[in-house]
Amino acid sequence: MIEFNKPYLTGKELHYINQSVNEGKISGDGIFTKKCHEFLENKYNFKKVLLTTSCTDALEMAAILLGIKYGDEVIAPSYTFVSTVNAFVLRGAKIIFIDSEEDHPNMDANKIEELITEKTKVIIPVHYSGHACDMEKIMEIANKYDLFVVEDAAQSIDSYYINKDGESIPIGSIGHMSAFSFHETKNIISGEGGMLVINDDRFIDRAEIIREKGTNRSMFHRGEISKYGWVDIGSSFLPSDIIAAFLYAQLENIEKIQKRRLELWSSYYNILKPYEDKAQFSLPILKQYSSNNAHMFYLVCNSEKFRTNFINKLNKNGINVVFHYLSLHKSEYYKLKHDGRELNNSDKYSSCLVRLPFHFNLTIENIDFICNSIKKI
Amino acid sequence: MIEFNKPYLTGKELHYINQSVNEGKISGDGIFTKKCHEFLENKYNFKKVLLTTSCTDALEMAAILLGIKYGDEVIAPSYTFVSTVNAFVLRGAKIIFIDSEEDHPNMDANKIEELITEKTKVIIPVHYSGHACDMEKIMEIANKYDLFVVEDAAQSIDSYYINKDGESIPIGSIGHMSAFSFHETKNIISGEGGMLVINDDRFIDRAEIIREKGTNRSMFHRGEISKYGWVDIGSSFLPSDIIAAFLYAQLENIEKIQKRRLELWSSYYNILKPYEDKAQFSLPILKQYSSNNAHMFYLVCNSEKFRTNFINKLNKNGINVVFHYLSLHKSEYYKLKHDGRELNNSDKYSSCLVRLPFHFNLTIENIDFICNSIKKI
Repeated sequence: MIEFNKPYLTGKELHYINQSVNEGKISGDGIFTKKCHEFLENKYNFKKVLLTTSCTDALEMAAILLGIKYGDEVIAPSYTFVSTVNAFVLRGAKIIFIDSEEDHPNMDANKIEELITEKTKVIIPVHYSGHACDMEKIMEIANKYDLFVVEDAAQSIDSYYINKDGESIPIGSIGHMSAFSFHETKNIISGEGGMLVINDDRFIDRAEIIREKGTNRSMFHRGEISKYGWVDIGSSFLPSDIIAAFLYAQLENIEKIQKRRLELWSSYYNILKPYEDKAQFSLPILKQYSSNNAHMFYLVCNSEKFRTNFINKLNKNGINVVFHYLSLHKSEYYKLKHDGRELNNSDKYSSCLVRLPFHFNLTIENIDFICNSIKKI
Repeated sequence: MIEFNKPYLTGKELHYINQSVNEGKISGDGIFTKKCHEFLENKYNFKKVLLTTSCTDALEMAAILLGIKYGDEVIAPSYTFVSTVNAFVLRGAKIIFIDSEEDHPNMDANKIEELITEKTKVIIPVHYSGHACDMEKIMEIANKYDLFVVEDAAQSIDSYYINKDGESIPIGSIGHMSAFSFHETKNIISGEGGMLVINDDRFIDRAEIIREKGTNRSMFHRGEISKYGWVDIGSSFLPSDIIAAFLYAQLENIEKIQKRRLELWSSYYNILKPYEDKAQFSLPILKQYSSNNAHMFYLVCNSEKFRTNFINKLNKNGINVVFHYLSLHKSEYYKLKHDGRELNNSDKYSSCLVRLPFHFNLTIENIDFICNSIKKI
């Protein structure tokens, strides 16, 4: 059986957890949390990083920081994970779903402007598969209409947007805020886990308060005030330092992890590319403005029927392939709240996208075997 | 320096974390999460246990499950941690603060009825220091007015309410739901962590959905449905299995931990009791309906001035003693929202309660030294 995903360990995780435990401080914001914050801020030019218990929680922090209230409108893709929008629904927002591009699951930035109303407050580009959305266009629209941009970068660690001058800008450093995931299915993991990145100074102080249950405890610990109290809404968004210790071991090895994942991704691509014309599927397309962080390898089948057949046959060969999101505008929870627009591209990816096994410990032999099985179909 | 708190390790934590990691599933609801659920349900007769990333998150789940909406009123003590009420404020509730008892920080159950209006939906008894509130009276009032009871049992693992027939009933098993903390300052720890206990069948199915980001994924994993989707609001409330592995090592040693903590608690009590009459402080009072789980050892000083002096002198002796909550009805966030009632007992504990060092690794010699220092004051 070739597993779809298998968490990769660098070897230092338990060592660092041990160290964290011996420090005598395993609750939030211990030494490893600080190490992770510094590492990530330095490497990716993020203004402020705050580890959270999940990417979902990072998105919830963003929704609170932006003051989302009942009736505010949020533009987000329908082809995404529920948390992208649920975090905003929890604060009372109405979600205006936007379609994917025809040739990519990312939101079609050309369709944003027609969805903007007086109530629109936020645009949430989701960088599917770690591939950048059209961020220059999105930021231009946001500036024009005075909207906030929260990047859902759950899958996008170590991926880049390439601007018109050819510069590589880390995904997550462009919008006002962004949210990343370190769930065990991601490139860099801590079991459950995430982070909020804040690129707009105005939100930094309040973010620390909201993350500390609405108290000014962070200021207290820095000696800026003599006792701390309840000053705002908030929640407990900070992870145990055990989680940060695990994460730090992964971050230290990010170059090695990314190198290997890119090799595996290229293997899939190079083997399957010559067959694309004859096959009933297409390979992922990389826009000229996006790098590839090799988060996943997906195919888009020509029909749902073919995909069902494809999944069944590969599963029979011991290869665990899976489909991905279901259009949220058609979900049981939102279908009656949606405004009725058809989102055909989102539906296409819901019906036709399939993900192949992808993880660090996959071998080139595994990929050969998988691709041979695909060729037979 | 005698530390106020120091996390205690049973010795098996890293071993179980290692096992969890080797299982290849370190995200939520792995094998150790299941072990913890079973252990806790069996030992304390809880109908349903769900581990969460914090006690705060468990309270937020409760607020969502109870359908709290704008304008609903929630009766809660002012002398408590912000999360007790912030979890409900996030859903739009108005907090009606209730005073503590004169002789105990717990809510004065005799004052509940006069605070109930048509908008009242929930009562939140906080079992301060793991000492039970007057649960028979509270449940009687809740039944009379058709209200829900959410026990804030953050400090109350392995503590009991003793009913009129003399039976010991686990704290957390009496209200419709209850929330526990496994923060590193608690008896049983996992760094950050918590659990929601559900004792009312009506909430169990929806709790699983809300905890899984509003999806019916738990049903999918049990094979009850063929694919899962977005069916409700929700968040990511489940902790990494690494956290559960740590917690399980602690739970296995709960008898040993509790035995030791009770010895330490009794030492403090027995040494200081003879001096109480002459001293400017009083010792904790245990009601006949409450057991003692030795979560903390506190004193109530006769004045704030004496407390300041007391804290300063002990700190100079290398003994880390600290005060605790500040009345929430006077907090920066809520003072203008509060209805203006005086809550004198809550204010008294804010000004006069002091906590002595208390943790598993404290020695009888430490306690002798601390008590001798106190006698000199």
